[in-house]
Amino acid sequence: MIFRQLFDSTSGTYTYILASRPGGEALIIDPVLEKVDRYLQLIRELDLKLVKAVDTHLHADHITGLGALRDRTHCITVMGEQTHADVVSMRVAEGDRVEIEGLRLDVLYTPGHTDDSYSYRLPDRVFTGDTLLIRGTGRTDFQNGDPRAQYDSIFNKLLKLPEATLVYPAHDYKGDTVSTIGEEKLFNPRLKVKSMDEYAELMNNLKLPNPKMMDVAVPANMRVGLHQEEVARKGWALTA
Amino acid sequence: MIFRQLFDSTSGTYTYILASRPGGEALIIDPVLEKVDRYLQLIRELDLKLVKAVDTHLHADHITGLGALRDRTHCITVMGEQTHADVVSMRVAEGDRVEIEGLRLDVLYTPGHTDDSYSYRLPDRVFTGDTLLIRGTGRTDFQNGDPRAQYDSIFNKLLKLPEATLVYPAHDYKGDTVSTIGEEKLFNPRLKVKSMDEYAELMNNLKLPNPKMMDVAVPANMRVGLHQEEVARKGWALTA
Repeated sequence: MIFRQLFDSTSGTYTYILASRPGGEALIIDPVLEKVDRYLQLIRELDLKLVKAVDTHLHADHITGLGALRDRTHCITVMGEQTHADVVSMRVAEGDRVEIEGLRLDVLYTPGHTDDSYSYRLPDRVFTGDTLLIRGTGRTDFQNGDPRAQYDSIFNKLLKLPEATLVYPAHDYKGDTVSTIGEEKLFNPRLKVKSMDEYAELMNNLKLPNPKMMDVAVPANMRVGLHQEEVARKGWALTA
Repeated sequence: MIFRQLFDSTSGTYTYILASRPGGEALIIDPVLEKVDRYLQLIRELDLKLVKAVDTHLHADHITGLGALRDRTHCITVMGEQTHADVVSMRVAEGDRVEIEGLRLDVLYTPGHTDDSYSYRLPDRVFTGDTLLIRGTGRTDFQNGDPRAQYDSIFNKLLKLPEATLVYPAHDYKGDTVSTIGEEKLFNPRLKVKSMDEYAELMNNLKLPNPKMMDVAVPANMRVGLHQEEVARKGWALTA
């Protein structure tokens, strides 16, 4: 398997490029608009062809690269069926599979951070979006977030995966790049709660400031169907 | 193999923790002083025992964690025989091996960024320090840097490794986490030169500003033998 983890330091976002070889089909997870040139350059250098671009959920902290990648490569865009994004080519639900040549991602519906949060699983690793972070979990206080749903997603789906499963989240802010299900079970401070109620209490009292780019990113990410030059223009205009 | 890549966003430094299992011996490459607590926490959580701490060279952009890790774990500190650091337990040279239980790193002398720059190789990957970066190379304009020596290190040692060898550098500033020898051979813009002379010309005309922390980091990193609380006090005092 070809596997690349890329980092956007502005938003602390991890983006993943996956491929197996022969014909070179590739898939990207959680691309950031500002980094699209780098992704396309790397995909070209690795002699790959981008066929699918997946967002784990509608992001509030950066503008997605999904639309721009579609405009420039005609790849299929993929999000969960609950998403409020206007136009995506493929809407997935629990139990679906997202395939490219030689690779199959199993789709897990893991709401809580948002109501359109999904995780994508390969046999040895899981892309957890903002549901399960390294020693953390995604906030649940906007975009139909729900700490009880997140508790269920984490405890009853993600933590049921084999302990050696590698955890690749959509973000990290402290310099970690990967973890495992076993480690998060033991050492994630947010998961030391004794009940769903206690988790909801914890999450409802975090009092976090809104993401810096939220008022730009959310409206822009709901208009992924438009030509992306238009989104960039309109999206940014919202802050003016 | 247990393998973790960790990132210090202040200096753009990548640090690596390596281990295989049974008794849990671990080795760390290019630790950053400010991140020592995180490394030790992770090593504890993974149930490992740190036995060796390696710096690829004397860094100018961050204070090494070598001394603090030695103070706190009694691990062996490792650097190249040319290093100007005052006290390290093990000085290595070309052809040596650095071993921990289940893992053997082959030592390659790769001067150029500094005269004490080494690379460390496992069968499938190489830790290139500041010699070979992802689509870049380490500057050669201080600490006995020498672009001709670096050309030789890169073209006659590193690029002779199998093309599939993974390249893990000490730094990245643009969000890449890994590359391969094959990719760098084809796509590293600094390596498109036709001769050693042309490379020296290129490197001698980069006109880069000094690293922000150079006047603190270099003197501190030459005093790795002292108890590190003393270094922190004295090192930082140099800027006052």
